[in-house]
Formats: sequence, C-alpha cells, structure tokens
Amino acid sequence: MACSEFSLISQYFNRQSTSRDDVKLGIGDDAAVLELATNEQLVVTTDTLVEGVHFPKATEPFDIGYKLMAVNLSDLAAMGAEPRWASLALTLPNANEDWLEQFSAGLFELANQYSVQLIGGDTTRGPLTLSLTLHGVVASGTCLQRNGAQVGDAIVVSGQLGDAGLALQHVLTNKKTTATLLTRLNRPSPRVELGQCLVSQASAAVDISDGLIADLGHILNQSQLGADLYLDKLPLSDEVRAVVDGVDWSLPLTAGDDYELCFTIAESTLARLVTDGIELTRIGTVTEDAGIRCLLANGEQVMMSEQGYEHFSAPDLVE
Amino acid sequence: MACSEFSLISQYFNRQSTSRDDVKLGIGDDAAVLELATNEQLVVTTDTLVEGVHFPKATEPFDIGYKLMAVNLSDLAAMGAEPRWASLALTLPNANEDWLEQFSAGLFELANQYSVQLIGGDTTRGPLTLSLTLHGVVASGTCLQRNGAQVGDAIVVSGQLGDAGLALQHVLTNKKTTATLLTRLNRPSPRVELGQCLVSQASAAVDISDGLIADLGHILNQSQLGADLYLDKLPLSDEVRAVVDGVDWSLPLTAGDDYELCFTIAESTLARLVTDGIELTRIGTVTEDAGIRCLLANGEQVMMSEQGYEHFSAPDLVE
Repeated sequence: MACSEFSLISQYFNRQSTSRDDVKLGIGDDAAVLELATNEQLVVTTDTLVEGVHFPKATEPFDIGYKLMAVNLSDLAAMGAEPRWASLALTLPNANEDWLEQFSAGLFELANQYSVQLIGGDTTRGPLTLSLTLHGVVASGTCLQRNGAQVGDAIVVSGQLGDAGLALQHVLTNKKTTATLLTRLNRPSPRVELGQCLVSQASAAVDISDGLIADLGHILNQSQLGADLYLDKLPLSDEVRAVVDGVDWSLPLTAGDDYELCFTIAESTLARLVTDGIELTRIGTVTEDAGIRCLLANGEQVMMSEQGYEHFSAPDLVE
Repeated sequence: MACSEFSLISQYFNRQSTSRDDVKLGIGDDAAVLELATNEQLVVTTDTLVEGVHFPKATEPFDIGYKLMAVNLSDLAAMGAEPRWASLALTLPNANEDWLEQFSAGLFELANQYSVQLIGGDTTRGPLTLSLTLHGVVASGTCLQRNGAQVGDAIVVSGQLGDAGLALQHVLTNKKTTATLLTRLNRPSPRVELGQCLVSQASAAVDISDGLIADLGHILNQSQLGADLYLDKLPLSDEVRAVVDGVDWSLPLTAGDDYELCFTIAESTLARLVTDGIELTRIGTVTEDAGIRCLLANGEQVMMSEQGYEHFSAPDLVE
C-alpha cells in the first residue's frame, strides 16, 4: 500500500469534538502533554482487541471502536477513576476509508460521552490489532483496589450476568439472537459513574471481563479470603435464565465480556449506598475460608470450574 | 494454545529490578496508579513495532525488546521529558519461553538504564505486534515542541546520520555488515539526556525516525519556515560516507531509524550549550523561505525528494 493511503488515516482521528483544557499538547508532536491537578493520581490501563480473537471477523467497525473504548473505560471504572485521555495504537492491513470512518465514529461516541480526548498514538500496517491506553485520575490515595475485601462483606454486582456470553454463542453458531443481547456483546456500558460512587465505600472492586468466578477470584486471592455465592440471587435476563434453567450456571458464572462491576462492601455501607438508579444485586458474602462456594437456595453446593470464559484471551498484565 | 501457556507470560514482566516510589499500584490490578509532583506535566507517547514491517523476521527478540523501548524513549527525548512509566501491549502467536525471556531482557535493559518501570499492559494471542506507551514528565510549560523554530536559528543534529539505514540495506540484501552498524539499527541509543539539556535552550526539536528531511520537515511545517541544509556538514560514519561518495545523499537525508535528535536553536545559545560530550553538528540554518534547500559546499543546490525513508511505516498520530 502506498504511504499516501495511510496519510489519510490521521484525518479520522483529528476531528474529535471533545477538546479538554488539560490537554496542553495533543496529536501532532512527538508526544502529548497533559496536566493533572495537585492531589490527583494518574490511573493507566491498556487493553488490546485482536480480530478473530476478541471479536468475530464480521463485527461492524463501529462496534469494534466502541468496544475498544468500553473495555478500557471498564478498567478505569473498577478503579473508581475519572477517565480523561486516550492513546491509540492501530495496526491495519490497509487504509479502508469506510472502515476508518465507522471505527473512529464508534470510538468517539463513547469517548465523547465521558469527555475522553484522544491525545495521540501510532498507526502501522499489519494484521488488524487495536490497542488503547486510557488515562484517568483519582483523588490521591482513593483508588479502588482488589485487595481490600473483609470477612462478612457483601459481594455485589451491577446489571445482569451472562448476556454477552449468550450473544457470542448465538453469533458463533449462527443462531438468531436479540438486539438487546447483541448490544450487550458489541456495545457494553462501562460502569464509570458507579465506580466513582464506590470510592471510599467499596472495600474492593473489579470489572467482569473474564467471568464472575475468575474476576471475583482476583479480589479473593489478593484479599486472601473466600466467598459464598448464592446462585439464586444472580441477576439474569430472561434469555440467560432460560438457558441456565436452574441447572447450567456456566453462562452467568464463567462467560466474559459483561463489563459489569463486582465489588465487596460492608453491609452497613451497602445499605446507605446511593447509586443513581444503577441496578445492584447482592450475590454473596466474603468468608474467611478460601475458595468460592456456589450455593443453591436449599444450601446445596454446586461444583464449578474456577476458570472464567477465556474468549481465547491471555491473562493481562493489568486486567 | 492452552491458556496455561499464556499464564506463564506475566512472570517475565513481573521481575523487573527497577521499582519506583511514584508507582503507587503497579502490575496486578485493573489499572496502575502513578503519582506526579506539583508543577509536573505528564508526557505520553505510543509506538508500535510489527514483525516484517518494522523489523525483519530474523531479528533477535532481545533487540526487538530493546528497540521497542528505544523508539519510545526517543520520542520523550524529543520533548525534553524525563521517562518514568511504561505500559506494554503484547500480541504473540504463541507463548515461546525463550522468546519471552530474551524480549523482556532487552526491554528491561534499556528501561532500567533510565529508571523506567513497567506498570502494566495486556497480553493477547495474535500476529506478533508490540506496542508500548511510555510516560514521562516535564516541568510545567517547558516541553520541547516542533513549532518554535525562528528565522536564523542553527539546525543541529546529534550523532551521525544514515547508519541504521545502511545496516538495514545490508541485512535485507544479505550483505556483510559491521557490528557497529548493526548496533545502530537494532539497539539505537535514544538521546534522553540531550533532550533534557535542550529544555529552555532549543527553539524546536524532533527525533529522526523517518529520515532527516521528513522529520526536520515537521519542525519547519509547524513553524511555517524553511531551511538551508549544508550537505558537506552532515555527520557521517566512514561507511555511510563511502556510499554517499559526494553524490547520493539519500541515506543520510531520507533513511530512518537513526533516533538522533534534530533541533533548532539560536546561534548565541548554541555557542553556550553544554551537552556532556554528546556529538552535535550544525547542519543548516532556518530561513523565512519555505522548503528545504540542500546545498553543496560550492553553493550548488541538490534536488531531493521530500519523502523520508518509509521503512514500510505509516505516519503516526503522534510521531
């Protein structure tokens, strides 16, 4: 491909409507220059999407851009951070203008919603790989970590579990699915506002990217504790409930890509928590005994694999 | 590939000797948390290396890791920034332990030299693609930009030009090369200390990744000025001088990958500049007239393409 084709690329990323005052130097120099206020700490996360690995080849470029921003926003949400600046590493087999138009539109739709400004990046030729580094801030010393869970804390999740996993099953097996499920897979809603609400309230938090068991497992491992999970309390859509049918809990427990938050919180704090109408469900209790016990309403324990849904993905350095 | 293979990966990136006090939370949570001092601004750059695009397939993994860090450090050098934190997005076809051992060793060799700590990232399966986002700081308002050149300023470069391009020619055509040239290609020395010296001294700066004409062109375009370049003043190794032979200036003018700094500076300031033994050469003068005029010692003008060496690469969003 001629270089001139690639020189078109930057125009798609140079026309974002969001323009932040704290971006002292944006796209167009050797690096970007950004300003934090006194008493703010910088929060940084990187997530990569690879075609055929994290999304099926037929995925709409708008959805790829949207999801790339969503999965990174979800990591900042799990830290309680306010999102601010994004840097994009885009590797493309060719400079398809339609693709770039749609992809950048999807990326910016969600970025603008959270006043995130694209401050730079790198465009290279190669197999389709999209990597975003997202920067946010927290008031110094207030970030939500994974290691703070306490015995007796309530375990809470936002939204519903297993919808994205069910949609992916439908897509991969060419089954009919619903618009709602597809949206849950392709345009997940990162819980940014909830994460910020949980600062100084939750004892530990994580976002559910690899499945509830795997991600709750990160909190419990780092807190050196265990949990009782109440399966009948899991928040499920009608579609997922129909698949589970009281027997097969793998979708809500191990399917990834929901990008809900899972957090632990003292019962008394939970009772006072105000989260502006975001659906929260208490699904368990932190215990001294290690491991996760999945319990039916009658107290019977269901044996589960500890592995989350892998969606072919490898463990992150920072998840 | 089994997930267990990938779970080995993190061990290679978790054992860096550098451990910075300003990393409040490093690898192992949803994101990293970092602290800047009052009056510091954050400087962010992202560069990607793709196999077969930015380096030949036979390149040693140690060199790939080293160069990935070097090209990003070079961007921070061109801003006058002090490097601090790195986030790595690593896409790998498989989890080859030898490869990971060597790659991480190369990455950390240069990172440790500049006290850069790896604070997170993401590992995914896919075609070999390596993307690093590097964070540094400058004292507020002091970064070196591209748009500050003034008419009459001296144009200065560090080191020598064209060595990396010549080494790549040798490698791609299976010609015998020298260890010195190969080092210039595979383990470039980013001019981090020089960049910091140039703060409040140089009027504009850029690093030479795509060739002198292309990168100096960025300064001149953004400053809306032109330049006279004195070809007989270009700093060349004996090997490059032999290829040029007074006639073919394409290597020093358009070959990329040298990662030297090119900057503009008032003549009086240049005379007082102290750079601790780093070789600097004045190669031209900033002019009011647009365009770059390449002049021989006798005043004759040589016509050059404006295009730098493409090394297959596309223009960066932030270069």
